[in-house]
Amino acid sequence: MMQTCTRIVIVGGVAGGASAATRARRCNEHAEIILLEKDEFVSFANCGMPYHIGGEIPERGKLLVATKELLQRRFRLDVRTQSEVIRIDRVTKTVVIRRLQDHSEYSLKYDKLILSPGASPFVPPMEGVSSKGVFTLRNIADMDRICAAVSAGANQSKKAVVIGAGFIGIEMVEQLVARGFQAALAEVNSQVLPLMDAEMVVPLHEELGRHGVTMDFGDGIRRIFSDAEGNATGVELQSGKVLEGSLIVLGIGVRPNTALAIDAGLTIGKTGGISTNAFLQTSDPDIYAAGDACEYVYGPTGESMRVSLAGPANRAGRLAGEHAATGRCAPTAAVMGTAVVRVFEQTVAMTGLSAKAARRSGINFRSVTVIAGQHAGYFPGASPITMKLLYCPDSGRVLGAQATGKDGVDKRIDVIATAMAFKATVRDLTGLDLAYAPPYGSAKDLIHQAAFTACNQMDGLGEVLDVDSDLSPYQIVDVRTSAEIAKAPLTGCSGVIEIPVDELRERLQELDQAKPTVVSCGVGVRGHVAERILVQHGFKKVMNLSGGATLRRRAVK
Amino acid sequence: MMQTCTRIVIVGGVAGGASAATRARRCNEHAEIILLEKDEFVSFANCGMPYHIGGEIPERGKLLVATKELLQRRFRLDVRTQSEVIRIDRVTKTVVIRRLQDHSEYSLKYDKLILSPGASPFVPPMEGVSSKGVFTLRNIADMDRICAAVSAGANQSKKAVVIGAGFIGIEMVEQLVARGFQAALAEVNSQVLPLMDAEMVVPLHEELGRHGVTMDFGDGIRRIFSDAEGNATGVELQSGKVLEGSLIVLGIGVRPNTALAIDAGLTIGKTGGISTNAFLQTSDPDIYAAGDACEYVYGPTGESMRVSLAGPANRAGRLAGEHAATGRCAPTAAVMGTAVVRVFEQTVAMTGLSAKAARRSGINFRSVTVIAGQHAGYFPGASPITMKLLYCPDSGRVLGAQATGKDGVDKRIDVIATAMAFKATVRDLTGLDLAYAPPYGSAKDLIHQAAFTACNQMDGLGEVLDVDSDLSPYQIVDVRTSAEIAKAPLTGCSGVIEIPVDELRERLQELDQAKPTVVSCGVGVRGHVAERILVQHGFKKVMNLSGGATLRRRAVK
Repeated sequence: MMQTCTRIVIVGGVAGGASAATRARRCNEHAEIILLEKDEFVSFANCGMPYHIGGEIPERGKLLVATKELLQRRFRLDVRTQSEVIRIDRVTKTVVIRRLQDHSEYSLKYDKLILSPGASPFVPPMEGVSSKGVFTLRNIADMDRICAAVSAGANQSKKAVVIGAGFIGIEMVEQLVARGFQAALAEVNSQVLPLMDAEMVVPLHEELGRHGVTMDFGDGIRRIFSDAEGNATGVELQSGKVLEGSLIVLGIGVRPNTALAIDAGLTIGKTGGISTNAFLQTSDPDIYAAGDACEYVYGPTGESMRVSLAGPANRAGRLAGEHAATGRCAPTAAVMGTAVVRVFEQTVAMTGLSAKAARRSGINFRSVTVIAGQHAGYFPGASPITMKLLYCPDSGRVLGAQATGKDGVDKRIDVIATAMAFKATVRDLTGLDLAYAPPYGSAKDLIHQAAFTACNQMDGLGEVLDVDSDLSPYQIVDVRTSAEIAKAPLTGCSGVIEIPVDELRERLQELDQAKPTVVSCGVGVRGHVAERILVQHGFKKVMNLSGGATLRRRAVK
Repeated sequence: MMQTCTRIVIVGGVAGGASAATRARRCNEHAEIILLEKDEFVSFANCGMPYHIGGEIPERGKLLVATKELLQRRFRLDVRTQSEVIRIDRVTKTVVIRRLQDHSEYSLKYDKLILSPGASPFVPPMEGVSSKGVFTLRNIADMDRICAAVSAGANQSKKAVVIGAGFIGIEMVEQLVARGFQAALAEVNSQVLPLMDAEMVVPLHEELGRHGVTMDFGDGIRRIFSDAEGNATGVELQSGKVLEGSLIVLGIGVRPNTALAIDAGLTIGKTGGISTNAFLQTSDPDIYAAGDACEYVYGPTGESMRVSLAGPANRAGRLAGEHAATGRCAPTAAVMGTAVVRVFEQTVAMTGLSAKAARRSGINFRSVTVIAGQHAGYFPGASPITMKLLYCPDSGRVLGAQATGKDGVDKRIDVIATAMAFKATVRDLTGLDLAYAPPYGSAKDLIHQAAFTACNQMDGLGEVLDVDSDLSPYQIVDVRTSAEIAKAPLTGCSGVIEIPVDELRERLQELDQAKPTVVSCGVGVRGHVAERILVQHGFKKVMNLSGGATLRRRAVK
């Protein structure tokens, strides 16, 4: 058995690293595979940590999915924990390892090296940041510390402050509330989930508010206060506002652990991650990279960028392991940045570009937003999903989507992410043959509805106006019933003319044909009918307000 | 306004017809649009009818989604119910209409004609078929009749017999049980949902059994018994077996209503539906067809066939309406036959070809089956989905998928149906960037797992054996722990050698390298590891039993 065999050394076990190691083994039973991890646990379910803190996953052991013992026995991996790689010598193809127990060092030759060092939480240099009760959440040790603090009621105050409203921040808020904490959320941007468009997260702000979470936006953290024993007591924001709390979670982003790669002279990409090719090879073909420290091709732009998500890390690790073990693998697919997070009863998910991101990248786009049930409206339990779809106005190519709602949100985003993998157009989306029965969807799913709207726009069969537009240059016609309008008037405008869509044809003379006109209804469906009527009755320029009064209230106060 | 305008006549309102009419109106405000319907209701939610019968949708009115009045007021349609078209004269472009109230007839000229006549339930000529208490379910009148019988407890016997275990049959059984009926289900094929592969529906048989439903398969209906008052009392099957029940529902398929089209000399396709082109035009370009009476291009084979589903009908109607009104529309997309149905706590969905259908069409295929949680296993509420994926062994192109499980089934099938719209390969599926967070999925979703398995098979990195194979020519190795094996031994074989995967490398000498070997575990994951080990230790031919012992128990007793 002991023929001369390849030695594959893997740096970092979580997500990408363990995937690489087990795949390499399955492809090459005879390779020597050494998995080096500086922490105690070589592989664990990091995405599950907030839910263990909140008690939703009661058993800590459940997060330890692939133990050291399992990896050793089943995959015959040489797993070395508490082993930090401190140097790569590419000329001699050697890594230098420090044993964290005794700080002794040794070196190890490799034939193929796979880097999966991950990323580390960003901790700003700041007064009080080392106080007791201040946490980041990246590994099991972090989780255990937070669990202990939560169980102690963070010294009974039961007040927590979460800084940063990204995925981890949101999940931590939800779970701390579940543990009986009063949670204050602060975010330097003007909203939760800053990757998303502003009007899309309004339902999340409302949902957080319903659960007693206070929110401060557009306000960064200045310092952390602590008492005489060094226990945190609260944070001061840049505005001077103080948020009290003895449990402080910092969720303000991560920094890729690229020091080792930089020292070794590997090429680093524009977004600060290790550059890789389609086979996950770095600028040194014997060195691979996967996970949060590397860059992937991002589908919507075709450019390389870091994407700190577990799915791409796992798949990249698997391919890197296969290539390291066999010298070949299928090229990696572009990453879409597809993500989902639960916010109490709400789900929010996204894939590809937001309007914000498209603008930042200088990408020409249009968007449509639909608000429609996750399943047939006549079936019990129907609840609305709001979905925004971005596309290229010239080619119709789908650029991205965002959705919020109670149920069925992940399904729609997965379908669109899948279509985007094939460079789908909005026209393609109109023809998707999706499963329909009343408990699951609609004969015309909201994906179809969004795509229909986009195609109408492209075909000149239904102009749509962005929901946050200035309506003052327009003759504004609200085509809902007066009862509906009384309950929820169109926000951010004045001089609205009210004509229910079913009376529109008979009351055309109340409107000025020559004036540019915007029509609006509840969510945009009747508005489309009204737009069609007016345009075909000689009105010069008519546009249907995207998402109607419902979306307008979220976009413009 | 009364310029010379196009007259569009639409025959049949349900699903396709109403979609065609409202789309035509939105595209052409000035066309004269006449919607003819022989029933009382021009448009209703036919997919919701079983759920109203079962009480899950309490309000009957909810099913009447687009009333005659709404269509008239909002879309200015000329809606004529109880109006049956009895003849088409293509030379004079005229239809002859019979008013069902008084049987008077009149004719109407058309510029464009859209046929959406739907299909009718098949009622076999049979003794007792006209007894009181025997029903089919196609329209509101049928539903009302069944509701009345259900409310009367079908004369208190509370015993129902459902003939036919297709979608309608299954939904009716579920809903009759919800109303307190003891339900007997009879199906001439050997399983429920005959479109699906046998092993895939075993969990549905179990689910139905758990709810007290008796099932008779492979047994057709011979006659219906009735008492002196003409009330049904039961059915006799071909085998002579008698199923008692005073409420009999026939769900044994539908026949397309093509008589009108045939009389008019329109081309009928191989599967008995009206032939249409990409713009839903029949062999007469001024006559369109949509819905259950016509044929669509079926994606997996590229051939035309009838697909009696609401989604394709709605989309086809919409495009036909647009083309009739404007002379252009986007070409229709291929239909995948995507469908979903709830069976109590289980969901079952499918898209594209089953193995059965592929064999019937002579299409070369391979399949893989995975059994994995709908979301991360460590997150509460994880429940398994069984998913079978069919693909072309040469090109890797995805041909179809079937799935059963409690939750997340529709999502997976929608994703695969979407990928199939772009002629995706299993390789493409491996790279899909799907949304992952513990409550929603896994970093390696079961779609990825199925695709990985298929690619391994194609790449020579993991041979899979079909679950229903004869295992007698093989050395059989069960790599589960002895406790697992004791609980659920591998069915349909003998002489199984038990070696847990984690001991396999040390116990190779217990096996015969030269013998063709099949390995099996619980669902196929450890089996894959075992297959990799054995092959790379010089075993001649090793295959991993697809879906392991779990699937084997469903496929082979």
